[in-house]
Amino acid sequence: MSNQAEFQAVRTTIVRNERFIWIADELKPGLFSEEVEPAQLARVEADDTAMHGWRAVRDAEIGSLESRELGKGQSVIADFGDHRVGYLSFEVRPVGSPPDAPLKLRMTFGEMPVEMAVPFASYDGSLSSSWLQEETLYVDVLPGKVSLPRRYSFRYVKLEVLDTSPKYRVSFFNLKCMTVTSADRANVIPFDHVDPLLRDIDRISVRTLEDCMQDVFEDGPKRDRRLWLGDLRLQALANYATFRNEALVKRCLYLFAGVSDERGRVSANLFIAPELIADDTYLFDYSLFFTVTLYDYYEATGDRDTLQELWPTARRQVELALERLDDSGIVRDEETWWSFIDWHESLNKQAPSHAVLIYALRRAIRLAEAVDCGSVGEFGRRLADAERAAVESLWDSEQGLFVSGEGRQVSWAAQIWMALAEVLPSEENRTLMRRLLSTKPDIAPTTPYMYHHLAEALLVVGLKDEAVDLVKQYWGGMLKNGADTFWELYDPGNPDFSPYGSPLINSYCHAWSCTPAYLIRRYGL
Amino acid sequence: MSNQAEFQAVRTTIVRNERFIWIADELKPGLFSEEVEPAQLARVEADDTAMHGWRAVRDAEIGSLESRELGKGQSVIADFGDHRVGYLSFEVRPVGSPPDAPLKLRMTFGEMPVEMAVPFASYDGSLSSSWLQEETLYVDVLPGKVSLPRRYSFRYVKLEVLDTSPKYRVSFFNLKCMTVTSADRANVIPFDHVDPLLRDIDRISVRTLEDCMQDVFEDGPKRDRRLWLGDLRLQALANYATFRNEALVKRCLYLFAGVSDERGRVSANLFIAPELIADDTYLFDYSLFFTVTLYDYYEATGDRDTLQELWPTARRQVELALERLDDSGIVRDEETWWSFIDWHESLNKQAPSHAVLIYALRRAIRLAEAVDCGSVGEFGRRLADAERAAVESLWDSEQGLFVSGEGRQVSWAAQIWMALAEVLPSEENRTLMRRLLSTKPDIAPTTPYMYHHLAEALLVVGLKDEAVDLVKQYWGGMLKNGADTFWELYDPGNPDFSPYGSPLINSYCHAWSCTPAYLIRRYGL
Repeated sequence: MSNQAEFQAVRTTIVRNERFIWIADELKPGLFSEEVEPAQLARVEADDTAMHGWRAVRDAEIGSLESRELGKGQSVIADFGDHRVGYLSFEVRPVGSPPDAPLKLRMTFGEMPVEMAVPFASYDGSLSSSWLQEETLYVDVLPGKVSLPRRYSFRYVKLEVLDTSPKYRVSFFNLKCMTVTSADRANVIPFDHVDPLLRDIDRISVRTLEDCMQDVFEDGPKRDRRLWLGDLRLQALANYATFRNEALVKRCLYLFAGVSDERGRVSANLFIAPELIADDTYLFDYSLFFTVTLYDYYEATGDRDTLQELWPTARRQVELALERLDDSGIVRDEETWWSFIDWHESLNKQAPSHAVLIYALRRAIRLAEAVDCGSVGEFGRRLADAERAAVESLWDSEQGLFVSGEGRQVSWAAQIWMALAEVLPSEENRTLMRRLLSTKPDIAPTTPYMYHHLAEALLVVGLKDEAVDLVKQYWGGMLKNGADTFWELYDPGNPDFSPYGSPLINSYCHAWSCTPAYLIRRYGL
Repeated sequence: MSNQAEFQAVRTTIVRNERFIWIADELKPGLFSEEVEPAQLARVEADDTAMHGWRAVRDAEIGSLESRELGKGQSVIADFGDHRVGYLSFEVRPVGSPPDAPLKLRMTFGEMPVEMAVPFASYDGSLSSSWLQEETLYVDVLPGKVSLPRRYSFRYVKLEVLDTSPKYRVSFFNLKCMTVTSADRANVIPFDHVDPLLRDIDRISVRTLEDCMQDVFEDGPKRDRRLWLGDLRLQALANYATFRNEALVKRCLYLFAGVSDERGRVSANLFIAPELIADDTYLFDYSLFFTVTLYDYYEATGDRDTLQELWPTARRQVELALERLDDSGIVRDEETWWSFIDWHESLNKQAPSHAVLIYALRRAIRLAEAVDCGSVGEFGRRLADAERAAVESLWDSEQGLFVSGEGRQVSWAAQIWMALAEVLPSEENRTLMRRLLSTKPDIAPTTPYMYHHLAEALLVVGLKDEAVDLVKQYWGGMLKNGADTFWELYDPGNPDFSPYGSPLINSYCHAWSCTPAYLIRRYGL
């Protein structure tokens, strides 16, 4: 997920817990590196049937790169064969007379063919153009070796000669990428599946998670590159089922707890460099996911010490969320981006947010029991109240669906989160999800993040076949459309959708999209 | 001077003299560094009366830089108060919310206001656009310090925020330049002059030379940055009268001699990095200037060892030039760029080149005498023949001027070089120059390089007042037009002249323009 200007900037005072930050620093992971060479040279072709209208096709074997002599205006695309996160280097030599002017070069990095085809200069989206991965650089001394200092997230890289001089051309060689990740592939729980599509979906999920695992769990290695709580929660779940890097989850929890605000609230996301900073974005659901992520962590590891130490922070998120309840006991709605839930522009956040509160409360109570905290009783009463209020105020018995906000909006998100929160008895919960699938409300999921919750809700109510179908259709759809890693955004009915106004800026390796590995393995799909 | 595509590329075999190259390497100078801060913030204003139509004016004191908060599309120009050659660094901090996207920044360096005003993207000249000094860079971590690895030649630098994000702006501070030169200011021969204009011209000449003195004598620190023989000869003369870095001249002579071709010919220019390479450009006059430069070096230093060792190379240039004489004993003319002389497009090179041969022969004979070489007699005869042929074939007694080429072109260059070569007896030589000044042929000097030879020719024939007037008008003209250092190109009648098609690419600190310090001091102007 990514910040936008519309997010409410809140002035707040951060209370640094130096012990928490010290513990997080101690847990900073080493990175695994691998030197990877391109698989082939590629070119992009316009193709209406391809994602965003562009397809990459084989141009030549990679061995032919060195023999290509490029002059002003000429370019070549190297295809690294799979998604890569790392550092690029290459060597370049002059061909012709001694170089009597510097080489001016543009390098364009792309996770998808569209990034190789559509000029970045045409970008006019809402997110900063500075996320578009390109470099313009000069090589003063030829032959020379260039090692780019920035990290890129890409499969394709275009080398474009902007200028040489009429007296020489250049050729490139030793092009390679030094990949980085804090995921240890040797530690992945082996997995196979009789269904080749689910096997592929699992493999790509694992790869997506791997490329997002860096100093912290990043949301996307191409863009944002930050630690978001909503993404962290899902990455942690996929991680327990695959790489089992529990220390990295612990680190991220301590980072969030290390910079809560004066009311004890954790931020929606953190900046890690040059120093730990809590972003001034606070989201109702994301703060609660601190509690949920701690719950999942404790379930996966049984690490009581961490639970003990972070419990006050986890409890506090629930207390603050409860303060938001109105007279009818429902989470107060607001015009601004007070809660995330999904990218859908018209989505009302009240009902799904209320469900997230119930979902988190339920888990907070189990944690309170584990640490023998006096909040158990109070939290139990509040949970019962919140559930009752949900049914009284948000349940539309005529439609048999939950409604949200003043406009009594019926959204997929509201039903999904109410199902995950298990507000209704088991049988009715299953009926709710069945009704959702049959009535198909207009306000539908727009992101893999929401589709994950849909799939898990189906599993929670026991609709496993429907969940399998969904995973195969949705994540399988990305796969069919050329995904090497799963995307930030994929709307099968509107494949060009970008909440930012351009598919160029979308992230095509995005943490919240990596959950099929968790769903498939955990629920035995 | 600078290579152009029209230069003839000649396939030739280089014979490396490892001893010469070793000696040159041993003489590689250390560089003097100084940390310089900008003098003020500036802005550029359109002004028809200013050079290239743009004037830089004070905008604010430099101390106000840090308080400027720049968002997307905003920029600031720092004025370093004088011409600088060196490395730029600055710090940048975010203002507003934590930076949720990289900072994308463009830096544009300019020796002249025009470079701050006219977008480089509009450049469409004949030289590579890669010489235009700009960088597009990303700062991923803020606050941050940026130290640019390339060397720039500039007075002005524009910092332009291409993108941040709607959540933050940036401010810059600690902007500075670490200058580099191999010229030791402490070693400059002190000089004063009662005429303030000549004093200023001398000062700017010295500064021009200083900024061109690096690992070698560069022709221009902004563009080309190479060791050209024609520039070296003039820089060496100015250097003897000012910085007295004789070792640097010696180094450059050994570099040229170290990579002559299989016939013993020295190249017009050398590339120094990543290794010594002789350019494939050979020019009749430039090769002869090796001999002349060795002569001047020996005159200035009395270094007999160097003379002895380099004499065979110096002699060889003369021998090769003599091979170019046709049946009438005149240097053979050609369509291509076989000899430089000046940038004038219509200039015929035959007569001035023949004069350069005579000029060089005369000095070669003195060197031959000094090393007691058997060539003395032969060279003496060839000199007499060349002088006689010049008078017989190139002297137009009706006009009282020398003519050049099949078209019998009357150019300033032909008269100037014939005067410098002292082909005519002393009194007639003075008459020749007087006639040149009064007849003003159309084919006039276009570069400071040619103007230098005009001034020195006036001094050689004893027209000192005319030489002083010329220096004050020509170099004083650049000064009046805002020169901090003297330029590669200045045509008072056509100030926008660029042989490359755009004043953006001209070099405004150019070695061949630094000679007034030599003329003023050596001839006591």
